[in-house]
Amino acid sequence: MKIVIIGGVAGGASAAARLRRLNEHAEIIMYERGSYISYANCGLPYFIGGKITDKNKLTLQTPESFQDRFRVDVRINQEVIEINRQKRTVIARDISSGSTTEENYDKLILSPGAEPVIPTIPGLNDERIFTLRTIPDTYRIHEYIQKHNVKSAVVIGGGYIGLEMLENLKNAGIEVTLMQRSQQILRMLDFDMASEVHQYLRDIDVNLILNAAINGFSSIGESLAVEYNDGSTVKADIVLLSIGVRPDSQLAKDAGLKVNIKGAIEVDPYLRTSDEHIYAIGDAIEVNNFVTNEPSHIPLAGPANKQGRIVADNIMGANTQFKGTQGTSILKLFDMTIAATGINEKAATGLNYHYDAIHTFSPSHATYYPGATFMSIKTLFDKESGRILGAQLIGFTGVDKRCDVLATAIRANMTAYDLAELELSYAPPFSSAKDPVNMIGFAIENILTNKVYQQHWADIDNVIEKVQQGQAILLDVRTPSEFERGHVDNSLHMPLDNLRSHINELNSSKEIYVYCHSGQRSYIACRILMQHGYSCYNISGGYRLYQILSY
Amino acid sequence: MKIVIIGGVAGGASAAARLRRLNEHAEIIMYERGSYISYANCGLPYFIGGKITDKNKLTLQTPESFQDRFRVDVRINQEVIEINRQKRTVIARDISSGSTTEENYDKLILSPGAEPVIPTIPGLNDERIFTLRTIPDTYRIHEYIQKHNVKSAVVIGGGYIGLEMLENLKNAGIEVTLMQRSQQILRMLDFDMASEVHQYLRDIDVNLILNAAINGFSSIGESLAVEYNDGSTVKADIVLLSIGVRPDSQLAKDAGLKVNIKGAIEVDPYLRTSDEHIYAIGDAIEVNNFVTNEPSHIPLAGPANKQGRIVADNIMGANTQFKGTQGTSILKLFDMTIAATGINEKAATGLNYHYDAIHTFSPSHATYYPGATFMSIKTLFDKESGRILGAQLIGFTGVDKRCDVLATAIRANMTAYDLAELELSYAPPFSSAKDPVNMIGFAIENILTNKVYQQHWADIDNVIEKVQQGQAILLDVRTPSEFERGHVDNSLHMPLDNLRSHINELNSSKEIYVYCHSGQRSYIACRILMQHGYSCYNISGGYRLYQILSY
Ligand SMILES: Cc1cc2nc3c(=O)[nH]c(=O)nc-3n(C[C@H](O)[C@H](O)[C@H](O)COP(=O)(O)OP(=O)(O)OC[C@H]3O[C@@H](n4cnc5c(N)ncnc54)[C@H](O)[C@@H]3O)c2cc1C
Ligand SMILES: Cc1cc2nc3c(=O)[nH]c(=O)nc-3n(C[C@H](O)[C@H](O)[C@H](O)COP(=O)(O)OP(=O)(O)OC[C@H]3O[C@@H](n4cnc5c(N)ncnc54)[C@H](O)[C@@H]3O)c2cc1C
Ligand SMILES: CC(C)(COP(=O)(O)OP(=O)(O)OC[C@H]1O[C@@H](n2cnc3c(N)ncnc32)[C@H](O)[C@@H]1OP(=O)(O)O)[C@@H](O)C(=O)NCCC(=O)NCCS
Ligand SMILES: CC(C)(COP(=O)(O)OP(=O)(O)OC[C@H]1O[C@@H](n2cnc3c(N)ncnc32)[C@H](O)[C@@H]1OP(=O)(O)O)[C@@H](O)C(=O)NCCC(=O)NCCS
Repeated sequence: MKIVIIGGVAGGASAAARLRRLNEHAEIIMYERGSYISYANCGLPYFIGGKITDKNKLTLQTPESFQDRFRVDVRINQEVIEINRQKRTVIARDISSGSTTEENYDKLILSPGAEPVIPTIPGLNDERIFTLRTIPDTYRIHEYIQKHNVKSAVVIGGGYIGLEMLENLKNAGIEVTLMQRSQQILRMLDFDMASEVHQYLRDIDVNLILNAAINGFSSIGESLAVEYNDGSTVKADIVLLSIGVRPDSQLAKDAGLKVNIKGAIEVDPYLRTSDEHIYAIGDAIEVNNFVTNEPSHIPLAGPANKQGRIVADNIMGANTQFKGTQGTSILKLFDMTIAATGINEKAATGLNYHYDAIHTFSPSHATYYPGATFMSIKTLFDKESGRILGAQLIGFTGVDKRCDVLATAIRANMTAYDLAELELSYAPPFSSAKDPVNMIGFAIENILTNKVYQQHWADIDNVIEKVQQGQAILLDVRTPSEFERGHVDNSLHMPLDNLRSHINELNSSKEIYVYCHSGQRSYIACRILMQHGYSCYNISGGYRLYQILSY
Repeated sequence: MKIVIIGGVAGGASAAARLRRLNEHAEIIMYERGSYISYANCGLPYFIGGKITDKNKLTLQTPESFQDRFRVDVRINQEVIEINRQKRTVIARDISSGSTTEENYDKLILSPGAEPVIPTIPGLNDERIFTLRTIPDTYRIHEYIQKHNVKSAVVIGGGYIGLEMLENLKNAGIEVTLMQRSQQILRMLDFDMASEVHQYLRDIDVNLILNAAINGFSSIGESLAVEYNDGSTVKADIVLLSIGVRPDSQLAKDAGLKVNIKGAIEVDPYLRTSDEHIYAIGDAIEVNNFVTNEPSHIPLAGPANKQGRIVADNIMGANTQFKGTQGTSILKLFDMTIAATGINEKAATGLNYHYDAIHTFSPSHATYYPGATFMSIKTLFDKESGRILGAQLIGFTGVDKRCDVLATAIRANMTAYDLAELELSYAPPFSSAKDPVNMIGFAIENILTNKVYQQHWADIDNVIEKVQQGQAILLDVRTPSEFERGHVDNSLHMPLDNLRSHINELNSSKEIYVYCHSGQRSYIACRILMQHGYSCYNISGGYRLYQILSY
């Protein structure tokens, strides 16, 4: 058996290593057009920021070590430029000499990855404009910064890579402007959650420009000027373009393999392309979303590594399905952690799901033990079954843990009732006796069983109208000092612990919309009000979310 | 509806709060014999150690705040001394006056907790011997330490509370000796895992005395002397007894409620005792182990809180089952984290399970990103289905996360195949593209599918015999420098990357037992050897575990 692999990093190298473990006698050839294999793409920003200083740390394997351990014939600086499906051969071109060689295969694995999207705007051809994908990209940026004593940068695109670069450029002492075409960064988040990140960035003095479509680049004196839609410009020493990636699938397309309209290679559940002898994995492929079963493109290292292993298994005779990707992702942004798993509200709305979402705000660990910080979690659930569809988490410590617990729960098709029962580890330094994930379960359960009805700030306009017309009451149940520090216009103030004694002051013919800081006390208020015959709604996310949204 | 609750802390207070939310009109009376309700038992050691300094932080609710928010009639300093099931009344005695009152109920909830086990040995009646369960206990210890300038302590019993007290006493500047009757501390761990903790404690200069059964206490000069089985004594200024807890169920027993031989109150899945009007929760009850379905006693705050909520639901007409406790628990021990979930090997053996266990050793996050530390995980699985039965984890950062992911997986009855597929959040500061939990899945999958056979150090004796008789080979595949620093007697050294070229030097009629540092390289070696016709076994846990076991 002879297997040829195109691409020697996350997917390709994982497949090669597993293939060898499964089959000591197969011939395995791995082509990589760059000079490095098996490198830590995900670590590259941290080399630029100085968090990682040792170049060797960026590569997990070298062609030599891979040969020694796995007897894989690694061919670096060799680009595969053609696949001949009839002959079952590939043609590779040596990057330095330009000479080509042909190699036959029994099975071919494509793991060519993705490439940064480059917009078509004027002035792009400037040595001060960078993208980041490979080790040479990294060195290029790093060296330019050192050599030209870079003091300012514009990062265009607020996705994961853009934000990691923002952090790392700042850590390198560079002033950074972040520009984003749409109204929010980080599209795995809904607008309300992204707004928390916007607020955080502004609080730490990042110049964040939203709704900024770039018109072009030009030179103004020594500086590079970034012109954007409203005619303004931002000047900087360098620009990092990070507006997304697209599947690197030209080779596959040329070979007549099926790709979707976005260029992602189509594969069956066994990761086989439209040619039964060719498999494809990683950033280049279309995957099914685990939650929705809809085709999607989720370019992440975890899935790429796992697909590499599955493809090796299948080539060696297993029949293992890849069950889809749920988009679990995480980002460190200075001391903040942002994570998501499953689908967000935009996706759920797009698919006409019968869903609802809840906001919770929980401490990372017992608040009586020093060092607890709060995390804000938005969880989507199916309104009938209570199945958890997705979660977005923002906070400091412990966010990664709750994301992974929720990711596991989603994988197991758990419902909110299951979350309420989860038995998670508790000691004061690590969590609370009711973990934030349990709390999500409780809060959703109350909605599913009609113990409380919810109102979202997003749909508040007609409520405000009713309040202004005297048909509804907006009730703030926080303490007097909280109320004094700020509240929503037209709201009536009645602290939770006084509610029972003042309840008769509330007109029971009016609908009551209740908020507190997070949604927890207003839930208790709603329970009291409902049982006294009031029709009332808990405003999800409370005044905290209101403030963020009106920031 | 009138509900009486006995016990005002984790289970009792949770039940009361939920009852009120569910029913605004019920009469709820909560008896607590102490002067505090709703307090943070789990935080008490940290007050003694000085990590928590504000006394108010130890109580989450006061009788007043509980009245204000939940209109619960809280009766502190009132001990219920009798339950009259026929009349459906309880008799409470006022602790200070001694006077008694009778109160009737429609439903009664028992959440009396557990009490420290006190052995019957001479010399116990000494003011320098303490146990820790309540706030007054805490103040007593704290004050004694301050007043008498305590310099040394003996902690008897290496369970969670004993170890937390060890840490906190040390943090308070006190020299501590830890004494344990059996051969290991922390009985949720198997001996091999506990040995890692023993090693850690000795490395940080804790005087750990195992196999020390206490004979008695006496005074030697100013000191308290702890005499133990071999006739030796340890002298100290104070002693903390923490050899376990037993259900505080005398009241229930006296009322004729069914309790098991260990004194735990028996309940049905709805948490109802043998009297349909009486429910019981928390540390006082017998629960089913979620994994084995066997009755057990798992006194932890998470289950107590959740049972409180379920009992409230059931009293208010729900029909919610408590599905059992899986023993998820965690401990901070200085900078180490120790966690467990599900069952351990002792339990699995006791039940004649057809199980196996695997040791993995994984970094908390990508090693190329600074600050990664390794964690050691032992995972038990069913040998047929691959179902995960339990896990024990020891390490530094990120241990709590993997414990909770595994706890969730166990709750979902996941198998090793499922763990391999889990899509957990990955960015370099948080994890690796293959999370430690994925790695567990991979490694077990290889065993289940006979890609590798395992050998455990625990059963190594007959292997060593065979090796000594020249019938088997013990093969060390680590690097030369690792080998030089130490290896198992009689082992043959052949670094993994030289194995293929030297394979003919191995006698293929002999069984080969392979080890490396952790088990990962020796797995690869086994794959090579097997495919060259050798019969071989991967020694789980590698040289690392060997060293720990022979420490
Ligand atoms: C800066 C950065 C940070 C990231 N951070 C994270 C993170 O924190 N978490 C996360 O999950 N993911 C992260 N990713 C994404 C992750 O790196 C990818 O999802 C993953 O590497 C995809 O694996 P792959 O094998 O599909 O592609 P790659 O790892 O990109 O490998 C593809 C390789 O194929 C080679 N190749 C392509 N075509 C040919 C050809 N015709 N002939 C020969 N060779 C060819 C390319 O040179 C490339 O080296 C990050 C990516 C970048 C760039
Ligand atoms: C020092 C310490 C540290 C701990 N750390 C952890 C940890 O980190 N994680 C964890 O999960 N668990 C921990 N626990 C265990 C946890 O506190 C218990 O599991 C939990 O509190 C049990 O709840 P409960 O309601 O059953 O009992 P408790 O919380 O103990 O409450 C029982 C109450 O009932 C009262 N009572 C009893 N009988 C009567 C009566 N007849 N009349 C009136 N009142 C009565 C008692 O005075 C007591 O206040 C710790 C416990 C201690 C002592
Ligand atoms: C490093 C690389 C070549 C993968 O190599 P790999 O050998 O498949 O993966 P690992 O080194 O993690 O080892 C995993 C193997 O060890 C086994 N293993 C781990 N611990 C074990 C233990 N204690 N006992 C037995 N087996 C163990 C696992 O089962 C697995 O083997 P399997 O796949 O045959 O089941 C590839 O992942 C790579 O190139 N990575 C860098 C690129 C990248 O991922 N970039 C994006 C992220 S920055
Ligand atoms: C504090 C104590 C009285 C419990 O009170 P509680 O009100 O049940 O619990 P919490 O304060 O955690 O609040 C949980 C409630 O808020 C709701 N909630 C939380 N966040 C919410 C949000 N954002 N929106 C709506 N509801 C929310 C939950 O659904 C839950 O209500 P439910 O049980 O009716 O579903 C009790 O746990 C206690 O006494 N604890 C201390 C003792 C102890 O546990 N000791 C051992 C450990 S140290």
